[in-house]
Amino acid sequence: MKVGIIGAAGRMGRILMEATLANPDTELAAAVDVPGSSLIGVDAGELLGRQALGVALADDLEKVVRDAEVFIDFTVPEATARHIEVCRAAGTRLVIGTTGLNDEQTASLRAASEDIAICFAPNYSIGVNLCFKLLETAAAVLGDEVDIEVIEAHHRHKIDAPSGTALRMGEVVAQTLGRDLKECAVYGREGRTGERDRRTIGFETIRAGDIVGDHTVMFAAEGERVEITHKASSRMSFGRGAVRAAQWLGGHQRGLFDMQDVLGLTGDSAGWGR
Amino acid sequence: MKVGIIGAAGRMGRILMEATLANPDTELAAAVDVPGSSLIGVDAGELLGRQALGVALADDLEKVVRDAEVFIDFTVPEATARHIEVCRAAGTRLVIGTTGLNDEQTASLRAASEDIAICFAPNYSIGVNLCFKLLETAAAVLGDEVDIEVIEAHHRHKIDAPSGTALRMGEVVAQTLGRDLKECAVYGREGRTGERDRRTIGFETIRAGDIVGDHTVMFAAEGERVEITHKASSRMSFGRGAVRAAQWLGGHQRGLFDMQDVLGLTGDSAGWGR
Amino acid sequence: MKVGIIGAAGRMGRILMEATLANPDTELAAAVDVPGSSLIGVDAGELLGRQALGVALADDLEKVVRDAEVFIDFTVPEATARHIEVCRAAGTRLVIGTTGLNDEQTASLRAASEDIAICFAPNYSIGVNLCFKLLETAAAVLGDEVDIEVIEAHHRHKIDAPSGTALRMGEVVAQTLGRDLKECAVYGREGRTGERDRRTIGFETIRAGDIVGDHTVMFAAEGERVEITHKASSRMSFGRGAVRAAQWLGGHQRGLFDMQDVLGLTGDSAGWGR
Amino acid sequence: MKVGIIGAAGRMGRILMEATLANPDTELAAAVDVPGSSLIGVDAGELLGRQALGVALADDLEKVVRDAEVFIDFTVPEATARHIEVCRAAGTRLVIGTTGLNDEQTASLRAASEDIAICFAPNYSIGVNLCFKLLETAAAVLGDEVDIEVIEAHHRHKIDAPSGTALRMGEVVAQTLGRDLKECAVYGREGRTGERDRRTIGFETIRAGDIVGDHTVMFAAEGERVEITHKASSRMSFGRGAVRAAQWLGGHQRGLFDMQDVLGLTGDSAGWGR
Repeated sequence: MKVGIIGAAGRMGRILMEATLANPDTELAAAVDVPGSSLIGVDAGELLGRQALGVALADDLEKVVRDAEVFIDFTVPEATARHIEVCRAAGTRLVIGTTGLNDEQTASLRAASEDIAICFAPNYSIGVNLCFKLLETAAAVLGDEVDIEVIEAHHRHKIDAPSGTALRMGEVVAQTLGRDLKECAVYGREGRTGERDRRTIGFETIRAGDIVGDHTVMFAAEGERVEITHKASSRMSFGRGAVRAAQWLGGHQRGLFDMQDVLGLTGDSAGWGR
Repeated sequence: MKVGIIGAAGRMGRILMEATLANPDTELAAAVDVPGSSLIGVDAGELLGRQALGVALADDLEKVVRDAEVFIDFTVPEATARHIEVCRAAGTRLVIGTTGLNDEQTASLRAASEDIAICFAPNYSIGVNLCFKLLETAAAVLGDEVDIEVIEAHHRHKIDAPSGTALRMGEVVAQTLGRDLKECAVYGREGRTGERDRRTIGFETIRAGDIVGDHTVMFAAEGERVEITHKASSRMSFGRGAVRAAQWLGGHQRGLFDMQDVLGLTGDSAGWGR
Repeated sequence: MKVGIIGAAGRMGRILMEATLANPDTELAAAVDVPGSSLIGVDAGELLGRQALGVALADDLEKVVRDAEVFIDFTVPEATARHIEVCRAAGTRLVIGTTGLNDEQTASLRAASEDIAICFAPNYSIGVNLCFKLLETAAAVLGDEVDIEVIEAHHRHKIDAPSGTALRMGEVVAQTLGRDLKECAVYGREGRTGERDRRTIGFETIRAGDIVGDHTVMFAAEGERVEITHKASSRMSFGRGAVRAAQWLGGHQRGLFDMQDVLGLTGDSAGWGR
Repeated sequence: MKVGIIGAAGRMGRILMEATLANPDTELAAAVDVPGSSLIGVDAGELLGRQALGVALADDLEKVVRDAEVFIDFTVPEATARHIEVCRAAGTRLVIGTTGLNDEQTASLRAASEDIAICFAPNYSIGVNLCFKLLETAAAVLGDEVDIEVIEAHHRHKIDAPSGTALRMGEVVAQTLGRDLKECAVYGREGRTGERDRRTIGFETIRAGDIVGDHTVMFAAEGERVEITHKASSRMSFGRGAVRAAQWLGGHQRGLFDMQDVLGLTGDSAGWGR
C-alpha cells in the first residue's frame, strides 16, 4: 500500500512517516508540506535522520496526489478542507486525524466519502480503542460492588482537564452501569468529604512534565482491585493506528469509516458515541 | 441465605465469616472448628472483634450441619473429605476452597454432587476470573504487534515461582495467540540476551515483604502500552468470591460447579482449563 | 524486652501483639482489654489463631502493669489518660499511638515523662518517616525544574481528603523549595485550567475499596520523572514501628520522644513540624 | 552561555539542540554534522521543525569551534577523539557523552583536560544520579528488615540485561548494607524456589515495546513498602543533564569533571564508582 503524508515536516508528520516505514505492509510514496520552508526538496528519509528514500518533500499536494493510494492528514481544518477536495478529484483515499472541523467542513467530508474512502476518527490509538471494550466488560462483571476511579496524567502544557479520553472512559463505564456521568462524576476531593458514595466515579488529573498520556481505570472491591491502564509513550501510537487505518482503507473504494470499523469493534457501546 | 463456616477460628475462616457478614444477602448461621481450642463456645462476632452474634463456635460439623443452607470449607483435604460426607447426608450445600485433594477425595466429591450442590474452584477471586476474560480480548485485538510480559509479586514466604495465577494468565494469552507457553515463556534475563523475540512471553517474579498478590500483564507496542492488573489486598477477595458462590448455589439442588459458572463466564477459553 | 499490649482484643491490639511476636528482640509479656468481653481469660496466642503463649487476656492494666517493661497503647484519649497514670505509678514505659488527646491529657503526658520514658508520635510507620527525608533531598536537588504532584489513595471509609500524610509530604517539599503550601496547593482540576504553573503542587486523592494507604510524590521534568512511593499494606507498618519504639525506649528511663528520635532522624526539617 | 552541538543532525544531536533552546541560560550558537548530508547548510531551527534560528548546520567542527564556549558531543569514539583535539587547540570546553572510548582515547581526554574544562560521564540524567543518593539513604534507614527488589523495563531492542543503571542501583544498595552484589543478586525465579532469603537482591527485567527506561527499587517490609522510581520518557533527560553540565562548565577553565560534580553530589558513595 502506497502511503503519502501531508504536513510531513511537522512533528506529527514525521511520526506518520516513521509509522509508515515501520509497517511491513505500507510504503512511503509521497511527502508534502507547505511552500517556503528550507526543507522543501529535502529527502524524506534524511529529514528523519535515516538513509535517503528517494522521496523529496513536495510543496503542494496536487503535485503528488497520484503518487500514493492513500494520504494521511493530521493538520488544521482549513488545510484539510482543501486536501479533501484535491483527493476527491484524484480518487485518492484519505485518513484524517485533524480535529476541530466545523459543520461545513464536516459536510464536505461526508460528501467526498461518496466518491472516495475516508477514515475520520477522534483518536487513532489502537490501545485506547481496545480499552473502551475492556472497560465495558469489567464494569458489566463487577457491577456495583466496586468503587471506580479514573486516574489520568498528561504533560504540563495540556490546558483542559480531565482529558477527553478520560471522560470517554468514564462514560463507557457509567453507561454500562446505567449511571449518568454528569451526575456521578467527582473531579476533586478536599476537606471533610465523608465516606465515599459507591455510585460516584472519581477523576484524578495529574499534570506534570512531558507525560504523553497515561490513563488508569481502577475497580476496587474489598480485598482486590482490577486496573485497566493505557500509557501512550509517543504520538507513534496515533501514527501506528493511522497507518493501520490507511492500510485497511485499501479494501474500500468509497465510504466514511472510523477506528471502530478498522479494528472490527463496530456495534459496541464502547465507541466514541457516534 | 444461611451460611456456615468450617475452620472458623483459623485465619481464612475468620475472613469467610467477615465476608458472610458483609454480604447483604447472606447470614452467618453456624461456625465450626476442631475440638480442644479455648475458643470453642466463644461467640463468633466477639471472635471477630465485633458485637456478639448469638452464634457459638461449635466443635463438630455434625452438631450444626442443619443450621445453614450452605457451608464454606477452606481447610485441609482429609477434613474436607469428611465434611463432604456429613453435608451429603444432611442435604446441605458446600463451597470448597481446599486445595490438594487426591484422586479418591476428588472422586467422592463428584459422587456427592449427585445429591447436593457443590462449588469447587482453584481460585475464588472474582477479579482474577474477570482478568482471564480481559486478557483474552486484549490478546485477540493486539495480536502479534505487541510484546507481552507478565509481572507478578508475592510475599517473601511463597515458595514457588511464578504463581499459578501468573502462569494461567500466560496460558490464556498464549492460547489466544496460538502459541505454546512451554516454548515461548522466558523466566529471567541476564547478560547478553540479544533483541527481544516478539513471540516470547516474559515472566518477572517479585518476592518481597507481605505482598498478598499482584499481577500485571503488559502488552507493549511502539508508542503505547495496555496493562491489565489485578491486586489482591487481602484474602477477603477469596472470601467475597466464596460467599458469592455460596449465595449462587442457593439456586441449585445438586451438581458440581466452579467460579466460571458462578460469574456467568462458562464456555470461555478463559477458564482454568477444566 | 518484655512488652505489654493495651486494647489487645481490638483490631490494632491484635496487630501490636503480632508485631511484638515477630520482632526477635521483644517478648509478649502481657495483654489487657476492657472487662465484660467473653475473651477475657483467653490465651493471647489462641486469640491470634496461633499456639497458646501462656499469657491470658487481663481485664485491667493495674493487674499486669509490672509484667512488662513497656506497654503500647493505641486506644482512646480517656483510656490512655488513665493508663499514663497507672504506668507512671508503676515506673513502666509507654508507647502511645492514641490520637486526639486534648490539652489537659497532653499536659499530663508531659508531666508523666519526667518519671517514665514515653514515645508519642502521630504516625509510627518507619517508611513514612523515611519518605519525608527522601522528599527533602529530592526537592533540594531537582528544585524548580520539575512539576510536583502528590497522589494518594485510601479506602472508601476515609472521611477527609487529602490524608494528613499527603499534606505533610506536600509541606516537606514546599518548605524545602521556599513555597507556602497554602498558596501553591491544587486539589482538583476540571475544565479549562490553562497550562500548569510550575510553582503549584497538585494533590490527587483516590478513595476506593480497602486501600490501606498509598502515597506517591512525583517530580516530573522534561524527559524524566522521579517518584517516591509509600504503600501501607496493613496496620502492621504502625505495629512494627511501635514495637521498634518500645524496644528503643529500653535505653531510656524517662523523657518524651517521637519517631524521629527512634529512627535517628531528629534535627531534620522532615519531621512532623513539632 | 553559548553552546554548540556536534552530531546535530542525528537523533541525540537534535535532542541536545532542543535542550539547549529550552534552558533559559544557554544559547544555541553552533551545530555541526558530517559532510555529505543534504541537511548541511539547513537552518538548525527549521531542522527541529521550529522557526529559523540563523544557525546553519556546518560540516566541520573546525569551521565553528570558536562560535561557542562549550560543545556537547554524543557521537562515536573515533570522532570524539578528533573533536577533543580541535577543542583543545581552540580553548573551547567540551561535554562528552560518547561511550566506549578505548584506553588511548581516554588518556588523550585526560591530557586535554589540562588545557580545557571537560565533563565526561557515563549517564547524564539528573534523576538517575539523584536516585543513587536516595537509595543510599533508604538502605541505611531500612537496613536488613526489608526485602529489596530492582525492577527495570526497557525497549525490545536492548540487548543486555539487567541495564547498567539497574546494576549500579543494586550496587549502591548492596554497598550501603555491606553486601557483595555478585553474591546476593538473583536474576530470575522459576520452580520451587523456597522462601525468599532476606539478604538477596532480586532483579526483574522487562523488555517490551519502546520503553525508554524505567527503574524501581522496592524495599518491602511487613506492613509497608517504600519504592524509589525513575522513569525516562525521552533522551531529553540526558539532553537536559548535558546542557546543565555545559552551563556548569562555564565556571571552570580546565579540569576533568563528571555529573556528580555538576550536581554537587561529589564525595558520595552513590556515584558511578570512579
